[in-house]
Amino acid sequence: MREIAILGIGQTVVEEQWDKSLREIGGEAAFAAMQDAGLERVDALYVGNMLSSLVSGQNQLGTFLSDWIGLWRQEAVKVEAACASGAAAFRAGLMAVASGEVDSALVVGAEKMTDKVGHDVTAALATAADADYEVEQGVSFVGLNALIMRRYMHEFGWKHEDFAPFSINAHANAIHNPFARLREKITLEKYKQAGMVATPINLLDASPIGDGAAAAVIVPAEKVLNHSARPRVIVAASAAATDTIAVHSRRDPLFLRAAYESSQRAYQMAGISPEDIDVFELHDAFSIMSALSLEACGFAERGQGPRLGLDNEISVGGRLPVCTRGGLKARGHPVGATGMYQIVEVVQQLRGECGPTQVDGVKIGMAQNIGGSGATILTHILKT
Amino acid sequence: MREIAILGIGQTVVEEQWDKSLREIGGEAAFAAMQDAGLERVDALYVGNMLSSLVSGQNQLGTFLSDWIGLWRQEAVKVEAACASGAAAFRAGLMAVASGEVDSALVVGAEKMTDKVGHDVTAALATAADADYEVEQGVSFVGLNALIMRRYMHEFGWKHEDFAPFSINAHANAIHNPFARLREKITLEKYKQAGMVATPINLLDASPIGDGAAAAVIVPAEKVLNHSARPRVIVAASAAATDTIAVHSRRDPLFLRAAYESSQRAYQMAGISPEDIDVFELHDAFSIMSALSLEACGFAERGQGPRLGLDNEISVGGRLPVCTRGGLKARGHPVGATGMYQIVEVVQQLRGECGPTQVDGVKIGMAQNIGGSGATILTHILKT
Repeated sequence: MREIAILGIGQTVVEEQWDKSLREIGGEAAFAAMQDAGLERVDALYVGNMLSSLVSGQNQLGTFLSDWIGLWRQEAVKVEAACASGAAAFRAGLMAVASGEVDSALVVGAEKMTDKVGHDVTAALATAADADYEVEQGVSFVGLNALIMRRYMHEFGWKHEDFAPFSINAHANAIHNPFARLREKITLEKYKQAGMVATPINLLDASPIGDGAAAAVIVPAEKVLNHSARPRVIVAASAAATDTIAVHSRRDPLFLRAAYESSQRAYQMAGISPEDIDVFELHDAFSIMSALSLEACGFAERGQGPRLGLDNEISVGGRLPVCTRGGLKARGHPVGATGMYQIVEVVQQLRGECGPTQVDGVKIGMAQNIGGSGATILTHILKT
Repeated sequence: MREIAILGIGQTVVEEQWDKSLREIGGEAAFAAMQDAGLERVDALYVGNMLSSLVSGQNQLGTFLSDWIGLWRQEAVKVEAACASGAAAFRAGLMAVASGEVDSALVVGAEKMTDKVGHDVTAALATAADADYEVEQGVSFVGLNALIMRRYMHEFGWKHEDFAPFSINAHANAIHNPFARLREKITLEKYKQAGMVATPINLLDASPIGDGAAAAVIVPAEKVLNHSARPRVIVAASAAATDTIAVHSRRDPLFLRAAYESSQRAYQMAGISPEDIDVFELHDAFSIMSALSLEACGFAERGQGPRLGLDNEISVGGRLPVCTRGGLKARGHPVGATGMYQIVEVVQQLRGECGPTQVDGVKIGMAQNIGGSGATILTHILKT
């Protein structure tokens, strides 16, 4: 694939933005990315979004946003893959630039989940699961993850509190991210006492929803000189893979096959192995997902994901810092935008812009975005 | 762009398929296209769909369908651009193959609009318009088109019955298409007497909704030998453009700027001019759209679109046959699938598979798919 550089990034704070509509939120991130890139115009717009038709009564989000930000006449389209919509839009943009069809693209992940005009958000999120064979049974999205977590604990002998380090680490990092939703420290005690959502998932295992948008401008790498004060960020790999949409169809529901497949393809494409990754923005929608991702991507043995948290390897300064800007757990999870937040955050690490949570000497960062209960998974590797 | 061939096509009949779910409908077209292509596996799946989250409570349609048809592990994603979702998915697939990231792709446009579990379909279709500034005022999608048609009649002095040839032609052609929803002839008298939907749009100006799916398999052209009995079909051009999402934001609401932009880019890419087009599958969601498309694409002067119908130039055997398989009006308009039906139908013409509505000596065919009231428009040119 033609080598591609990320020229600019932008993001909004994740919170309940009652004073802003979806177009204003998406526009804010888009304008920030264009300004950061120093461009006034791009050839195409790719928008990652999951819920706008259900929550805001708005479809055709590509043109909706290109119109708002003044990209008149340019092509624009929405890409959807449930909670992996952000990374899926990023990959669509990469392929457009790589094909030579467009010379620059803006990718925006945008989601408005509060101040809804339509569906209840829990019902809307359930559309990521199989409507005929999962949702029809009354299982919610957190319910599916709770079933997976319970089985995992049974199978490998972990206690609930063994998952605490994932959430504690995310919250500790979010304190230093001005765009994060939950900028507050949590303790093991607080984690253990949090209210139950769907046993064994409690409030501090689950990521909060929110309104937010994150964006990036991408161009062919050869068009970006590498002599500015700011390091040039290159897309070293992009890979996507799928699994069955229903969890019960999987031979092994405790193995994220699509995370394994997409990360393996990404490592091969980048010519690296897991130990070369300096920072990993993983998809901690629920703490169980952190463990499963770490295992599928080759950072831990089967059933040993929680060990990395307990051994303090995932914190900034550890062997594999994860969720350095707060992750889904504490930065927040505006679903269709999350994949682009991860990309933006890895770029911030590679540029050395992360202040107290900056990882020393970062050269290679990875972002992994998960749609549904592991059904669609995209892995991107960025490097300086 | 790397030259791409369409290796296989498939489609389902458009009708109220109460006995089939969205996955079965999408799967039927997908399997037909794979069989037609002679392939058992492709690298990636692109699904065009607009309404599944609203009507069927199902998102993540890429993986939903890749799972069903057994494309396990392959990447899959949904692309949405309202009624232009089909062509938008096709273009995403083209760019993926053109980038070299995937070597073969299946593109499926699929829509289920009847037997709904969720929204009313008229309300769901309104999500193509601007939720904040159009739908909020109570205007439906057909209402917006009625405003455009009324203004057009006023501005250029046409009577309602002058639009009749578009619908009569579409119905006449659909009789010979086994996949069409309305396989019945209509007369001028019947057209004039049809029940009013939103003045001046009556029932025979408007395309019927329906359940349906159409699909194509695409591969790099160099991988397809051109010596088989069946002519090789090549994508000569693909172009997309946008306009404002709200009709009232346009300086001239009677000019489809995005149709003009995308067709001009497509002509340039293919190295041809409008007179080289042998067959044109246009987006006749409402008869007014036929007139506006013909004008914007350079086949008629401003305000003179209906003339082509009245002069019998659009029928098979005319100067520019349009809607040779029935168009949206009579084949039916399963919204997110329509763009792929158009691609499939142009391929059928280029292969000479259209029986009584086969256009003689077709070498170049064009398909144009419109999302919203002219907001997102994609133009594709295919050739043998």
